[in-house]
Amino acid sequence: MGLRLLSLSTLASPSVKNASCRLRIVSPVSALMVTEGRRESKTHHHLSTTTTNTTTINTNTTTTTTINPTPPPRHHQLLQKSIAVNTPSIITPYLSRHLYTSAYSSSNAVIESASVGNGEVRVVWGRSSACGGEEEEWCVYPYPWLRDNCQCTQCYDAKSYTRIITLEDWHHDDTPHQVKVCEGGVCLEVVWSSGHISTFTSTWLHQRRFNHQARSVKKSMLALKKEIWGRDFQISRHSFDEIVSDDEALLGFLTSLEKFGVVLVTKAPRKPKAAFDIVNKAGFPKRTHYGLHYPIRRKLGAESLAFTDLKLGMHNDLPYYNYVCGIIFLHCITQFEGSGGENDLADGYHVSEYLRHHHPHQYHLLTHTPVYFWNKGVTEVEGETQEFYKLFNTPIIVEDSMTGEVVRVNNSQLRDSYLDISPELVTPWYSALRLFNTTLQQQAIRIKLNSGEMLVMDNTRLLHGRTAYDGAVGERYMDQVYLDWDQALSKRRVLQEKLGIHLE
Amino acid sequence: MGLRLLSLSTLASPSVKNASCRLRIVSPVSALMVTEGRRESKTHHHLSTTTTNTTTINTNTTTTTTINPTPPPRHHQLLQKSIAVNTPSIITPYLSRHLYTSAYSSSNAVIESASVGNGEVRVVWGRSSACGGEEEEWCVYPYPWLRDNCQCTQCYDAKSYTRIITLEDWHHDDTPHQVKVCEGGVCLEVVWSSGHISTFTSTWLHQRRFNHQARSVKKSMLALKKEIWGRDFQISRHSFDEIVSDDEALLGFLTSLEKFGVVLVTKAPRKPKAAFDIVNKAGFPKRTHYGLHYPIRRKLGAESLAFTDLKLGMHNDLPYYNYVCGIIFLHCITQFEGSGGENDLADGYHVSEYLRHHHPHQYHLLTHTPVYFWNKGVTEVEGETQEFYKLFNTPIIVEDSMTGEVVRVNNSQLRDSYLDISPELVTPWYSALRLFNTTLQQQAIRIKLNSGEMLVMDNTRLLHGRTAYDGAVGERYMDQVYLDWDQALSKRRVLQEKLGIHLE
Repeated sequence: MGLRLLSLSTLASPSVKNASCRLRIVSPVSALMVTEGRRESKTHHHLSTTTTNTTTINTNTTTTTTINPTPPPRHHQLLQKSIAVNTPSIITPYLSRHLYTSAYSSSNAVIESASVGNGEVRVVWGRSSACGGEEEEWCVYPYPWLRDNCQCTQCYDAKSYTRIITLEDWHHDDTPHQVKVCEGGVCLEVVWSSGHISTFTSTWLHQRRFNHQARSVKKSMLALKKEIWGRDFQISRHSFDEIVSDDEALLGFLTSLEKFGVVLVTKAPRKPKAAFDIVNKAGFPKRTHYGLHYPIRRKLGAESLAFTDLKLGMHNDLPYYNYVCGIIFLHCITQFEGSGGENDLADGYHVSEYLRHHHPHQYHLLTHTPVYFWNKGVTEVEGETQEFYKLFNTPIIVEDSMTGEVVRVNNSQLRDSYLDISPELVTPWYSALRLFNTTLQQQAIRIKLNSGEMLVMDNTRLLHGRTAYDGAVGERYMDQVYLDWDQALSKRRVLQEKLGIHLE
Repeated sequence: MGLRLLSLSTLASPSVKNASCRLRIVSPVSALMVTEGRRESKTHHHLSTTTTNTTTINTNTTTTTTINPTPPPRHHQLLQKSIAVNTPSIITPYLSRHLYTSAYSSSNAVIESASVGNGEVRVVWGRSSACGGEEEEWCVYPYPWLRDNCQCTQCYDAKSYTRIITLEDWHHDDTPHQVKVCEGGVCLEVVWSSGHISTFTSTWLHQRRFNHQARSVKKSMLALKKEIWGRDFQISRHSFDEIVSDDEALLGFLTSLEKFGVVLVTKAPRKPKAAFDIVNKAGFPKRTHYGLHYPIRRKLGAESLAFTDLKLGMHNDLPYYNYVCGIIFLHCITQFEGSGGENDLADGYHVSEYLRHHHPHQYHLLTHTPVYFWNKGVTEVEGETQEFYKLFNTPIIVEDSMTGEVVRVNNSQLRDSYLDISPELVTPWYSALRLFNTTLQQQAIRIKLNSGEMLVMDNTRLLHGRTAYDGAVGERYMDQVYLDWDQALSKRRVLQEKLGIHLE
């Protein structure tokens, strides 16, 4: 959320006729650039059932070429600026293709001419501008958007990046009396009928073009494309020392986590709160009723199964929170020596998409049946007793209300026994839930952390389980800390800008 | 979430034929109880336009009688247990009708007989049970639900309220070999074909009946019904000392906040962090990139318009967070002496519902157009410099993906100038946004806090503004703290159980 991370739908029409920018058709690639749609990459799932009654899912991700056009030669040297993403071998070609600085910089955009009409200001770009004649010839900017985003000091506070004016502060019917290209094409002056004057730089306007290409740059700043995976996944490994001491390593760690939903941190100090060193670089720890961090180890009278040596099924943490904790740091201080205490990890997005394509009825039940998750009890946090009663009603698979994309999965033994659906739907729903869980198991990877390693997981996406171990025989001691995606994404963007790295 | 606070849809069929429990038709009220639907209260908006070009909205909330049947006489004494909700006068009759302990206790439920068939266990309730012959005669419980929720110590850990078994731990096809009513009707034993034996108490089963009545009790534990309001709203006032010293006062405060989206706290100490005294009773403060609390006062080089003396339009805080802060504590330490510095408050849910009913096209644009909110800059929190770059893409009005209910509203001068929609939609969308803002203004109440008062606001629902003041002439000093709804709702439930108070 996680939950609304991918609110990226577009209302734009897919036809060239309605597109905001006209093309000079130079190549098939540029012609494709105006193709717009709700999904920019398609994933095909192929199911093959073997006679041993196991199911395999092969994922074949097809990326539309319009989004990732080959960068022009003059930017090739920037491709060499690669960040320290320790990429799983199966998707290396994909990631490396995306680690380049944008080929479509607006920094040299020049305005050739501008005109008004039909509620829009039309800007014609000079052929010498950065788009180099390979992109659009002209773009339109609707009047209300221009007026609302006036950058003058009366209307806009550049220090806080905030619009000073509200919608009540300007006339809805204000129209440009005149537009002027100034300073040789690097700015545009709009004189409004009301007398107000707005000036926009060509760079600013070019970056905000109402077309697919400009918006894809912004979208990638919002959220990177997720790479879904199955049981052949090889987890990405990142060194603790590098993450906490080097910005590029930190960005690589955050990028892998965002794209794949899980990373492994190696060589961490074997002491509680070590995860804070990373969390505080990325933001700050998220507090829950368990505190800012808590040990996962066997104890008597445990208020959670986590604090026993029992098996834990495939689950995400705290599904009974509306604002579910986004990122889990599971730090292995001491691993159990005998057999057991292993972690199973599965990509909930992958399994959800598989169900969507191959079991649409079950998928529908899991996305449209609200169920309760709950947790009730008493915790002692730093000497303070806290009673809690968390309750949340949510489907197992949560879709974004606009795009239909899966944005959160919930699965836990803390599902409530209260089930608020019609009884004739109960048995079909259980079948669907069982299918979801079976597929999770089939698509899971198993890993046993070494003492000093950390699993870092996207808790809106990843489901993790633990095999039982014998707590009477030996110790197993994990420290756990949470971090919100809002903070982690913020830090990723700050680092991207600072290091000048474009990601998708 | 508030974004997903109201995920309460039901998939049940509205027909009596498909209902899980058969009725003995005793009265029209009980007959209505099986009527199910997605919305349990209907709100009608009447618009009257006067010649002075102002628009008024009269809200007439009609509550369906099925949900709130008149409690039977034997519970009348419990009606006297009223909590300290300082209710706005216009809705006193509503609230007082709802402050009673549930008339439909399951504590005396007795099973007369039980049988198996058609994938369900059918339980016939004794006429002497708490439902007193006025409710259902029998109920059905589907097999997988019963098996999944076995309460034996192998399957369920009562200490942590957690299911020990996962779905893989029992056979999908396990069916009851035999059911036995035991101990004179207070429990039911199910012997499964696999040999496993489950025992359920009659109370436990009665509470979890698959019908409308039982689920409405659970729903109210999840979330109370929202009471929407317009410009004739009278804000509820709660004394600081009472809230922090008395559980019933704290529950009353939390209940008012949940139902109305805003309350006023009086007689608070005029010092920073005073809000922590309430926040820590309800949970713990929510940290943002501004820290755990921060002063709102004029300063040079402000990183936010809040820290100037400028007007602020109707907004919610931090809309650029995916997990938007749920509750704002705005504590007036020193109010500005001259004119200005007043707060406008409007119910975003009310205005959204008004648009849904009277301006469906504009409502659709506002619920289906994703826009960016952002905030970028540097803060100094406790000597530590933090760079941040928050970005979130969300419609102005956010609907729950299943129920279509409004669960979050976003409005802010921090709306990004990047707008990721087709240009021909820009002008209509601006018209819709303007209508939303104009209606907010028309339906707002204005209040000037006294020094020592606090506004507490539901930030997923309420929009608030501030009139400008002259910071060169005098001081205005507010302290601000956030709290998550997950914590506040948890505390409300803990207090409800502790005090034995039923709320809707």
